[in-house]
Amino acid sequence: MVKTASHVKNDSGTKTTKDNALQEPILDFHYHPQMSVADFTQALGSIGYQASHVKKAIAIITRMKQNKAKIFLTFTSNMVSSGLRGFFAQLIEQKMVDVIVTTVGSIEEDLMKAHGASFYLGSFDADDALLGKKGINRIGNIFVPNESYESFEDIIQPLLEKIYSTGKRTLTPSELIHELGCCINDPHSICYQASQKNIPIYCPAITDGSMGFQLYLFRQKHPDFTLDVVKDFSNIMFAVTPQDIKGVIVLGGGVAKHHAILATLLNEGMHYAVYITTAHPYSGSLSGATTNEAKSWGKIRSDGDAVTVTGEASILFPLIMVSVLDLLKK
Amino acid sequence: MVKTASHVKNDSGTKTTKDNALQEPILDFHYHPQMSVADFTQALGSIGYQASHVKKAIAIITRMKQNKAKIFLTFTSNMVSSGLRGFFAQLIEQKMVDVIVTTVGSIEEDLMKAHGASFYLGSFDADDALLGKKGINRIGNIFVPNESYESFEDIIQPLLEKIYSTGKRTLTPSELIHELGCCINDPHSICYQASQKNIPIYCPAITDGSMGFQLYLFRQKHPDFTLDVVKDFSNIMFAVTPQDIKGVIVLGGGVAKHHAILATLLNEGMHYAVYITTAHPYSGSLSGATTNEAKSWGKIRSDGDAVTVTGEASILFPLIMVSVLDLLKK
Amino acid sequence: MVKTASHVKNDSGTKTTKDNALQEPILDFHYHPQMSVADFTQALGSIGYQASHVKKAIAIITRMKQNKAKIFLTFTSNMVSSGLRGFFAQLIEQKMVDVIVTTVGSIEEDLMKAHGASFYLGSFDADDALLGKKGINRIGNIFVPNESYESFEDIIQPLLEKIYSTGKRTLTPSELIHELGCCINDPHSICYQASQKNIPIYCPAITDGSMGFQLYLFRQKHPDFTLDVVKDFSNIMFAVTPQDIKGVIVLGGGVAKHHAILATLLNEGMHYAVYITTAHPYSGSLSGATTNEAKSWGKIRSDGDAVTVTGEASILFPLIMVSVLDLLKK
Amino acid sequence: MVKTASHVKNDSGTKTTKDNALQEPILDFHYHPQMSVADFTQALGSIGYQASHVKKAIAIITRMKQNKAKIFLTFTSNMVSSGLRGFFAQLIEQKMVDVIVTTVGSIEEDLMKAHGASFYLGSFDADDALLGKKGINRIGNIFVPNESYESFEDIIQPLLEKIYSTGKRTLTPSELIHELGCCINDPHSICYQASQKNIPIYCPAITDGSMGFQLYLFRQKHPDFTLDVVKDFSNIMFAVTPQDIKGVIVLGGGVAKHHAILATLLNEGMHYAVYITTAHPYSGSLSGATTNEAKSWGKIRSDGDAVTVTGEASILFPLIMVSVLDLLKK
Repeated sequence: MVKTASHVKNDSGTKTTKDNALQEPILDFHYHPQMSVADFTQALGSIGYQASHVKKAIAIITRMKQNKAKIFLTFTSNMVSSGLRGFFAQLIEQKMVDVIVTTVGSIEEDLMKAHGASFYLGSFDADDALLGKKGINRIGNIFVPNESYESFEDIIQPLLEKIYSTGKRTLTPSELIHELGCCINDPHSICYQASQKNIPIYCPAITDGSMGFQLYLFRQKHPDFTLDVVKDFSNIMFAVTPQDIKGVIVLGGGVAKHHAILATLLNEGMHYAVYITTAHPYSGSLSGATTNEAKSWGKIRSDGDAVTVTGEASILFPLIMVSVLDLLKK
Repeated sequence: MVKTASHVKNDSGTKTTKDNALQEPILDFHYHPQMSVADFTQALGSIGYQASHVKKAIAIITRMKQNKAKIFLTFTSNMVSSGLRGFFAQLIEQKMVDVIVTTVGSIEEDLMKAHGASFYLGSFDADDALLGKKGINRIGNIFVPNESYESFEDIIQPLLEKIYSTGKRTLTPSELIHELGCCINDPHSICYQASQKNIPIYCPAITDGSMGFQLYLFRQKHPDFTLDVVKDFSNIMFAVTPQDIKGVIVLGGGVAKHHAILATLLNEGMHYAVYITTAHPYSGSLSGATTNEAKSWGKIRSDGDAVTVTGEASILFPLIMVSVLDLLKK
Repeated sequence: MVKTASHVKNDSGTKTTKDNALQEPILDFHYHPQMSVADFTQALGSIGYQASHVKKAIAIITRMKQNKAKIFLTFTSNMVSSGLRGFFAQLIEQKMVDVIVTTVGSIEEDLMKAHGASFYLGSFDADDALLGKKGINRIGNIFVPNESYESFEDIIQPLLEKIYSTGKRTLTPSELIHELGCCINDPHSICYQASQKNIPIYCPAITDGSMGFQLYLFRQKHPDFTLDVVKDFSNIMFAVTPQDIKGVIVLGGGVAKHHAILATLLNEGMHYAVYITTAHPYSGSLSGATTNEAKSWGKIRSDGDAVTVTGEASILFPLIMVSVLDLLKK
Repeated sequence: MVKTASHVKNDSGTKTTKDNALQEPILDFHYHPQMSVADFTQALGSIGYQASHVKKAIAIITRMKQNKAKIFLTFTSNMVSSGLRGFFAQLIEQKMVDVIVTTVGSIEEDLMKAHGASFYLGSFDADDALLGKKGINRIGNIFVPNESYESFEDIIQPLLEKIYSTGKRTLTPSELIHELGCCINDPHSICYQASQKNIPIYCPAITDGSMGFQLYLFRQKHPDFTLDVVKDFSNIMFAVTPQDIKGVIVLGGGVAKHHAILATLLNEGMHYAVYITTAHPYSGSLSGATTNEAKSWGKIRSDGDAVTVTGEASILFPLIMVSVLDLLKK
């Protein structure tokens, strides 16, 4: 049985997108001492602009959980470069999400950090040629010493050998990531927690990073080692069913976003969706494609409960999720 | 005596902008139940990207207050359309700022709201032709019924008459706004609180709104009623001195931003500056001009303690100021 | 008589905004040697995204002229800092526009350039503290030596004396700018051409720049010299009538944009509008407010022929206007 | 031998990024009738802001070709949805580029269009739920009828059978795309021209689209059919050598951008780079990562000749390349 709209609780019960009604007044925000994050974000709801979208996102994610939706979470690797990595791990540990889609940089950097690599707060306007000479790589205002990437070879090759030694010759990317997660022991690691909780991490462009080079090196020694990307497509497609209530939380854009909403398109669309992105729709980019646009495709159901929050995930994602977690505890 | 850099306390003591050092590690963010806003924003500081700029902005504004800087606050009128209006009033009441610069729409809408007008939460993608037919004006996702603007004539003309009746023939825009604030009685009103606390509100383009039309109508009856904009220029210029420690908090761009940093340029530049803007520097716009660019002009002192936070003020300004208020209470 | 929709020729005859029809196929763009700008922009029309909006903007401006609309052109002062200054002068000389609204920086920099000041191409990521020490002010990637601004006093004070000496004691800002334009002799000057062609330049925040300081200095010597901003409001309001066919070309945002669309709102709205902006609608800013939003207010008529082109005016405005000028010559 | 900086001709001979010199004056742009695109873009060079970056991009790409650089071109699939598809094919036919990296949607849509599918110019603000009901998918303001995607199965399965029937059991994604290009006959097709000219097209996330589903279906029938993504990593890595002079033209962001600059990082960095993107650096996204940031990594050589043009590729890419093609013919 496919869930119809009436199965999905929505606090308004009506489509508001094209609505012209004057219903919810804008209310003045007021400070009181020691406001909690959850109280703060409730108050944002009547400010207007993206502040009101933050509150809407919190309500939608809360409903996702209350209605036991299967939740896809997608993020780009710069989120893992940042301090959100440990928060993702915590959300996985608490089983807040069911399927993860990301880029391979996320896996690489999660493993580096699990093995002690430090990333540093730097500056957006550093002298990049000078940084290059000093062996520092820049990701926005995050500085990553060369050693972190150089150490990746020392980390990954033994792990690949260990996996290979168990007789595995062909893995899908998500199976590989699961195995890698089983080999490490860091509660703040995304891969570790995902392996512990049996939550799959899909990575459709598994070779697009240092991992690609390491897999190439490993193949030189073990020509029969292969990755099966076609099988992983069916894995993500069958990770949910058309009958499931489904939701997605998308941070940024890229292949991670697209892969998740493609998987749900093939499962009759999502009931719930929250996009957090800095990209705008005017150039037709996937990163800027709104939840509305997704409804034309059926990636989100036409009666889906969805919002696009325009802004930066490094602030908005923890702001939203901390509020959701507190609301769910009530 | 002009304050030198050593008079301005800075928690790092060093210029970090072009710094290539690896000092502050990125730390994983973790949730704990019932986090306060102030704890949350401290944790943002080690996430990276704009999250770290939020923490920096909080630290700079806190230092502004601790070092008794004279603080300019600038905002555009869409901030007053939103629920930030009452928060601005609260900040003025608490004497958190010393000089305000804004556009005339802020004054108009503050008066409308003080007289009971309601603005409503709507949708960014409403059918605008239909809204127009229904007499609803849209500002982003805020809906404003025509009546609110139509009522402005009923509000403002008696007030102008009252001011005129006291014998005043020529006022500067800031004097006019002060008088208007004295005529109303709403603790959530920006104008009311500014008049109560004797905080000037500058509005260099005083005719650029419904106010312009009302002033034109009033002039028809009272041809000797004039506004003196040149005198208000000297008022804002002499609102601070070169010897004062000065700070600025800029929300968005436009004439409000420019006027404040022009006034401080003529006073040897600001010691502290926080810009919150959605605009980017690539087109040379004033709205996107960074705190760095301001240093080339001397609008901000070359050793000034400054940050540009890229993002939307409807979320970031209350997030930052709630944290500042809590920190100052400690 | 107010012009109805049927008086305004529109190449489609239908509202396309909410249209779901499959009518115009996307066509492959192909290069051929020595393409003219006008041929190039016609080909953009079937590419999609903002390329198609460029073609639409060209068509709308061409119709404005063919239908003898009174045309408002608005721009911010950074456009005058750039090499578009001479192009604006050329458009005025050719009587392509009827009313100009801008910020006072435009007037200042136009006069500086008319008196030989040079602005330079620099870099967006220069060291601003160092620039400041070298006496160079940065506007995006344009460098302006301090001398240019310092020379402004030498330019403007004699001109103000000259105007004052003719007996003028009170001028509106647009009258002042007209007089200034009469005093200089540079065919590439906006003010010069506007004075020659009797095209008014409105500047609602006339004191928001070096001009403010110079007017203050002049007032010290001549206390009876005043500017009448209220009268200029009626001047721009009556610059057109409800019966006129009206169009607007808006570059960027700010007070210049708002003042023009306010003037047309009071004249029953525009028939044609082209906005070129880098700002996005999501924060409710005026700069990002679309032509659609303007229809809810009646700033643009509900049947108005309008497009918002998202992108940077330094490229898009000459691209569009060069095409319009060539099309009109046909 | 690795090429040193002196092997790479650069019209300035100096690093200008942090330069504070006043060398190139801003020049007024002037219209003359029937301007060619190439003349127009030369004139943009002295306007400032992104206009000057357009001219710089043209100069850099012209130098790439004159210095016989191996050129990577990357684009996202929305560029192929648009009318740029035929232009990409033309550039490949003229051997303007040597290596292509894109997302699988580009391949799918190129094949659909080669088989007669039409995409249509629509509107950014269509009613998406209604579009969905009508079987129309929206990509920005491009409308794609469901049939186009449904027809993809009819197109691709016979092609896969044909390729399989030649005995091929394992292909890399780039080999698969090469084979597909050999099977069609449309001079406006990217795949066709790439196969004709033996230019590889890399697609690191080959399953992230309808292709993924089709490969899954094909695998059901032919369990021994596999794709080897690890081998394609070495293919792109060895597509150039450290000794080659290398350049890259990046449109937008995503996995296509990252994969190209990763391949060149492993080959001692690029000598030339032009990025055209709408994304900004402030959020640490890959899409917004500048050519400067790439120098910290060694993706672009520290002395590399590079520019980031902020703006939309649907306009800027043809504007730049039409100029380059004309300049090269001189």
